[in-house]
Amino acid sequence: MTNDATLPHGGAALIGLDWGTSSLRAFRFDAAGQVQQMRHRPWGIMNLPAAADGQAHATPAAAFEHAFDDVCGDWLQAQTGTPVLACGMVGSAQGWREATYLEAPTSLDHLAQGLTVVQHAAGHQVHIVPGLLQRGELPNVMRGEETQVLGVMATSALPDDATVLIGLPGTHSKWVLARRRSIAQFHTFMTGEVFAALRGHTILGRTMQAAEAPDDAAFARGLQVARSEDASLGLLSHIFSTRTLGLTGALPGTAQADYLSGLLIGHEVAALAAQQAPGNPPAHVVLCGEPDLCRRYALALAAYGLPAPEMADNATARGLWQIATAAALVAPTDPRSTEAAR
Amino acid sequence: MTNDATLPHGGAALIGLDWGTSSLRAFRFDAAGQVQQMRHRPWGIMNLPAAADGQAHATPAAAFEHAFDDVCGDWLQAQTGTPVLACGMVGSAQGWREATYLEAPTSLDHLAQGLTVVQHAAGHQVHIVPGLLQRGELPNVMRGEETQVLGVMATSALPDDATVLIGLPGTHSKWVLARRRSIAQFHTFMTGEVFAALRGHTILGRTMQAAEAPDDAAFARGLQVARSEDASLGLLSHIFSTRTLGLTGALPGTAQADYLSGLLIGHEVAALAAQQAPGNPPAHVVLCGEPDLCRRYALALAAYGLPAPEMADNATARGLWQIATAAALVAPTDPRSTEAAR
Repeated sequence: MTNDATLPHGGAALIGLDWGTSSLRAFRFDAAGQVQQMRHRPWGIMNLPAAADGQAHATPAAAFEHAFDDVCGDWLQAQTGTPVLACGMVGSAQGWREATYLEAPTSLDHLAQGLTVVQHAAGHQVHIVPGLLQRGELPNVMRGEETQVLGVMATSALPDDATVLIGLPGTHSKWVLARRRSIAQFHTFMTGEVFAALRGHTILGRTMQAAEAPDDAAFARGLQVARSEDASLGLLSHIFSTRTLGLTGALPGTAQADYLSGLLIGHEVAALAAQQAPGNPPAHVVLCGEPDLCRRYALALAAYGLPAPEMADNATARGLWQIATAAALVAPTDPRSTEAAR
Repeated sequence: MTNDATLPHGGAALIGLDWGTSSLRAFRFDAAGQVQQMRHRPWGIMNLPAAADGQAHATPAAAFEHAFDDVCGDWLQAQTGTPVLACGMVGSAQGWREATYLEAPTSLDHLAQGLTVVQHAAGHQVHIVPGLLQRGELPNVMRGEETQVLGVMATSALPDDATVLIGLPGTHSKWVLARRRSIAQFHTFMTGEVFAALRGHTILGRTMQAAEAPDDAAFARGLQVARSEDASLGLLSHIFSTRTLGLTGALPGTAQADYLSGLLIGHEVAALAAQQAPGNPPAHVVLCGEPDLCRRYALALAAYGLPAPEMADNATARGLWQIATAAALVAPTDPRSTEAAR
């Protein structure tokens, strides 16, 4: 794979788009499911490009088309008719076209059958992967993570019926129970966004100082509180200790952000652990996300006696290829190629 | 009591200042401990007045003196030498003069013996009440609430050795175990500040709409989640339901803020309930704070089987009088007058 390199444009089998709130990535796949080129643009659905005159586009659709043309217009020009598959918030109510939610549990085949099509003014068809909705007293939703999960599972060497717990840490962390071609259940934790709001918009941020390197000891101390004899005091009480440990000289300003991160991730993983069948933790855990964040989550999983996770990467590209194949948008060159993107 | 009315200035026994982060209140007490006048100014320690030329004062002390003169300078001019007692963040490191923390548990007498004196350039002495520090793995601090608690207890008809659980809901809610003349233990929950940060600075606020009246049903629904079979999913997961219940049409935008408030206060009171001896809830609970907020907390206490609270008011003024009496800053006109501010 190259980043926007000068490879010849022949042979593209699929263009995949990972189109979220804050950024847009495009993948150009060959017929074996390998990513030939990858591009990254800042055109998240909340940050679309302005028109050539610097003004807003006349319609939302025009802004989406502008971003689309910028990231992959030349690929389509070089090879008209290449199928396009997009996942993520581009299918939300604030996106290019709202793609309905499928209800969880669901399967790769259901997702592939549920694509929504949006017509580009230049004639291209863009297929959008459905989001997932899990009903209940506390409903849950995802858009984009379903594709990552199927990408992670496509690379798994486990039997098709093995259940895997997949963690997707970030702004809104997702924890998903999945098999090779299906998604059973998931939970959401607003850990990343709560951390940012506490650091940026409460008194806790005022005494924090930038650190030169991650402070794993402070992080571990935060983790520990969430499972100590003080655990029942809960998160709203625990977080205040970020300030009081500073006031009493027990936690330097440079350690406070990592301590708070440990508190929050500790609470998330404590809740996750409480969801597992007693005495029967999941046999397989995979983490997929920003490497340093995944490293911290691995520390938290260990603290709670959960299995050491495997780390997955390129999950979205792999998932887009899986779904495109199941939807017959692409006809793989070889029978094994649904798994070629491993 | 009158608000800044035209009563003659004779007979003041004490000037009390409730000086916090965002506002300043002054009380003028007569010799029987009754508040004759009360004034309110926006001069919290983070919002002190500018100098006459519109510029910042040359020193922090000058800015505090300016605020002080504005709120009670004429009272002192009318009766030189009236003792002045202040509580709250004015005694913090960012205040007029740092007043050391006393360690909890502590007593009214210890607080009265631990006053810090700051000298006003015009010759007045301002006494500042110490804050409280509770050491431990998760230290706790208060500044100002110790005075409120002693004020609440001064009005109690209970025996001196009865233990009362006092709740001071707000930005940082405090729950304090106290007796008539002593403070045993306390906890802090950042409930109010977390609510504001979530509403103002996360995705949860984007779908919230202003409501015409408090939505107690939505609040109760939030309370319920915190003690449902989904309780173990924890706060970081529960709060996401504010959004997903909206997405699924189960919670209108106008109900989302009250629902989130119920979730957070539910988690606070769940933690509080977990701190109580099993099967032996506190016999006496008092709430002191903004009336609608106290009303909500009373609903939460009921949901968790805690006793119906009494509501207290004017606690800070009463507490200042108690401490001034114990410190012999005032010589009450009658032996019963340490309780006159009831």
